Amino acid sequence: MGMEDCVRPIDIIMKKRNGNTHTQEEIVYLIQQYTEGRIPDYQMAAWLMAAFLNGLDEEETYFLTHAMLHSGKIIDLSCIEKPKIDKHSTGGVGDKISLILAPAVASCGIAVPMTSGRGLGFSGGTLDKLESIPGYRTRLTEKEFVSILGKVGFVMSGQTDDIAPADKKLYALRDVTGTVENIAFITSSILSKKLAEGAEAVVMDVKFGSGAFMKAKAEALCLAETLLRVAGKLGKNLICVLTSMDQPLGNAVGNRLEVIESIECLNGEKIPDLVEITCTLGGYMLIAGKKAGTLSEGKELIEEKLKNGEAFERFVDSVRSQGGDVGFVEHPEKFERARFSRPIHSTKNGFINKIHTENIGTAAVYLGAGRFSKDDEIDPAAGIIVHKKLGSTVRKGEKLLTLYYNKESHVDEAALLAGSSYTIGEDRGHDFQLMHEVIG
Amino acid sequence: MGMEDCVRPIDIIMKKRNGNTHTQEEIVYLIQQYTEGRIPDYQMAAWLMAAFLNGLDEEETYFLTHAMLHSGKIIDLSCIEKPKIDKHSTGGVGDKISLILAPAVASCGIAVPMTSGRGLGFSGGTLDKLESIPGYRTRLTEKEFVSILGKVGFVMSGQTDDIAPADKKLYALRDVTGTVENIAFITSSILSKKLAEGAEAVVMDVKFGSGAFMKAKAEALCLAETLLRVAGKLGKNLICVLTSMDQPLGNAVGNRLEVIESIECLNGEKIPDLVEITCTLGGYMLIAGKKAGTLSEGKELIEEKLKNGEAFERFVDSVRSQGGDVGFVEHPEKFERARFSRPIHSTKNGFINKIHTENIGTAAVYLGAGRFSKDDEIDPAAGIIVHKKLGSTVRKGEKLLTLYYNKESHVDEAALLAGSSYTIGEDRGHDFQLMHEVIG
Repeated sequence: MGMEDCVRPIDIIMKKRNGNTHTQEEIVYLIQQYTEGRIPDYQMAAWLMAAFLNGLDEEETYFLTHAMLHSGKIIDLSCIEKPKIDKHSTGGVGDKISLILAPAVASCGIAVPMTSGRGLGFSGGTLDKLESIPGYRTRLTEKEFVSILGKVGFVMSGQTDDIAPADKKLYALRDVTGTVENIAFITSSILSKKLAEGAEAVVMDVKFGSGAFMKAKAEALCLAETLLRVAGKLGKNLICVLTSMDQPLGNAVGNRLEVIESIECLNGEKIPDLVEITCTLGGYMLIAGKKAGTLSEGKELIEEKLKNGEAFERFVDSVRSQGGDVGFVEHPEKFERARFSRPIHSTKNGFINKIHTENIGTAAVYLGAGRFSKDDEIDPAAGIIVHKKLGSTVRKGEKLLTLYYNKESHVDEAALLAGSSYTIGEDRGHDFQLMHEVIG
Repeated sequence: MGMEDCVRPIDIIMKKRNGNTHTQEEIVYLIQQYTEGRIPDYQMAAWLMAAFLNGLDEEETYFLTHAMLHSGKIIDLSCIEKPKIDKHSTGGVGDKISLILAPAVASCGIAVPMTSGRGLGFSGGTLDKLESIPGYRTRLTEKEFVSILGKVGFVMSGQTDDIAPADKKLYALRDVTGTVENIAFITSSILSKKLAEGAEAVVMDVKFGSGAFMKAKAEALCLAETLLRVAGKLGKNLICVLTSMDQPLGNAVGNRLEVIESIECLNGEKIPDLVEITCTLGGYMLIAGKKAGTLSEGKELIEEKLKNGEAFERFVDSVRSQGGDVGFVEHPEKFERARFSRPIHSTKNGFINKIHTENIGTAAVYLGAGRFSKDDEIDPAAGIIVHKKLGSTVRKGEKLLTLYYNKESHVDEAALLAGSSYTIGEDRGHDFQLMHEVIG
């Protein structure tokens, strides 16, 4: 207990509470001590809320990201000679793009070292989706991670305990303390994980709209700019693509339903928004990896891999390498489906002008596709099929959605939420624009 | 897990985080669930910081106070026929007034049911002071509390587990999460405890200045007004007296040193600021208890009890009733003193124009008189004697302070802090004014 040399957690909390700016030393102290269990959750929670409300500037965000990145190991991928490019999405309803994109990009000679997360609130998670394939293991050792990446060309794994352990603890704490939707926290969480993976460049799908964490495009732009600037300070190449989440991506929401839809897409089925976003993000990944000179060249290459079955074969290889039963992937009709279904019908004629996409995601959670609290178990078969998307016409009595579930306990809540998520107008609304700005 | 009927802690946290106003239902839920251990500390910490930064309005503060008061028992003092009047201080450096005031007021025929707290940061606590008398027990059952009050006329106890248990948990959490200095929290903490004690009226010593939690008088006025209004909604009579803590109260800072000084005062020694504040607060207590018609009449009565030894005799009775060794109180020279002392000398001639009183309190904590963390042990003999107060003249080399301690580990820090707490000018500064507004 010195005077000058003794930093106390309470002083750091009060400094941010009072609206002051942290030094790198303070942030390093906070993150190290918290990761090592020497600062309790309740002090970290107070700091998180103070930082949420009073803000962290760009320099503080960089310090935070740096401290979180260096709280664990940085994977060494130097043994892999291919360009190593990753993709990350800020999350949304029905976002199964990683499952389609990673094998497609890997087919073009790029190594994709992908660590993903679990579902969070209304938004699904890649790990939960993959684990709906019987046997699929997302918990890999670093050795397995590197070996599968070398062999298959891509790998999909949960964050190992070694990677950014600070983020793992903070992420869980933010989730239960109402401190999720903050640009500094989101930036440091994404970058500390993604930069620890050893990728040279990362293409970011920064989502906004009613089914994303950022509702307003301005917020998403601000996040994208923060991501770019902080990554730049850390010497990492980033490309941010802004995309709209004003409706679910594809038609399936829920883990196994999304895997099945991804398999269809990998088999060349033209689900328009899935193909568009996959080809664009893939195109930028190919440019970053010097496998394409222009975006249109990159997009064509990706589209080709979806058509000619190469992407699908990669996906099968990956499932096999990660312990999954490829029989299901090759014959998706074998997947066990939910026992019950309930259609939601339109109550009038008109145009689909608006979809409250978060409500569809939350409805899927009520059906069992996600978790309200950390210990909730996921039902892999539960979810929603979306029959009508923005701009479609609909007639009274026509199906808007179908709910799939095994447990009936919260179906009424789900039906109420999902059913009220559509705004049907007499006139056609604005055209929906999926792809927006690209910055980087 | 319903939709409408399910309040979740996270929703309450986010509501306050977003700057919205709570309903009574939400606050009751939060306080009940937290008290019963069903909301974890980390969620409460996040809410505390959100409420600290975004504020609680008067109605929310009333809801909070009401919920905290009703989280435990309200002591029934109807068996005691005397008027039951208490005093509370918001805390400061050297504030041993309760030890002098309670026996003096009790000598005038008023029952004083006093629950006190421990030291908090730079500010000492009545319980720690009393416990520096060998054998003194501050942990009483409700039965003992009522019985001693009836027999002695006053009682000094820690908050029992039954009294406002919500406050007990929240107070400890606020202390370690940087959420202490907030008017809504301070109001609810003070009133939930004080109203549970069963007193009919409470005189509040609301302190401001460099040795108080509220530095600015405007803040203290705001606290006093909030206290009055919230107490009014709860049907309780309050008188708030604003007093300055721009210098230590009396000359002793540290538990046993303060007990000894209190005994001197109870034996009629005229330590001016201690007498002035005791007589004023006591005067208002006598008015509230209808034992005096005017303030000057009340003050005279109190002064008389200090002079004629009655207050001292009450104090001895109380120490005996609460298990303390009266031998020490009757012969304070028997108290074990600190092994070491170090004087702090003035480095120039001049007038004492300013005292950074909080630093003197913190220096005493470094010497062992208080706690930096909850588990630190207190050294009852450690502390500081103040030789020079505001407006005094001082010569170079003359003693300003003397530090008393048994452990030498942090004496240098204490000496540095205490030594730098004096501002000595060539001209005499403004006159010090101890007593300020009275509202109620």
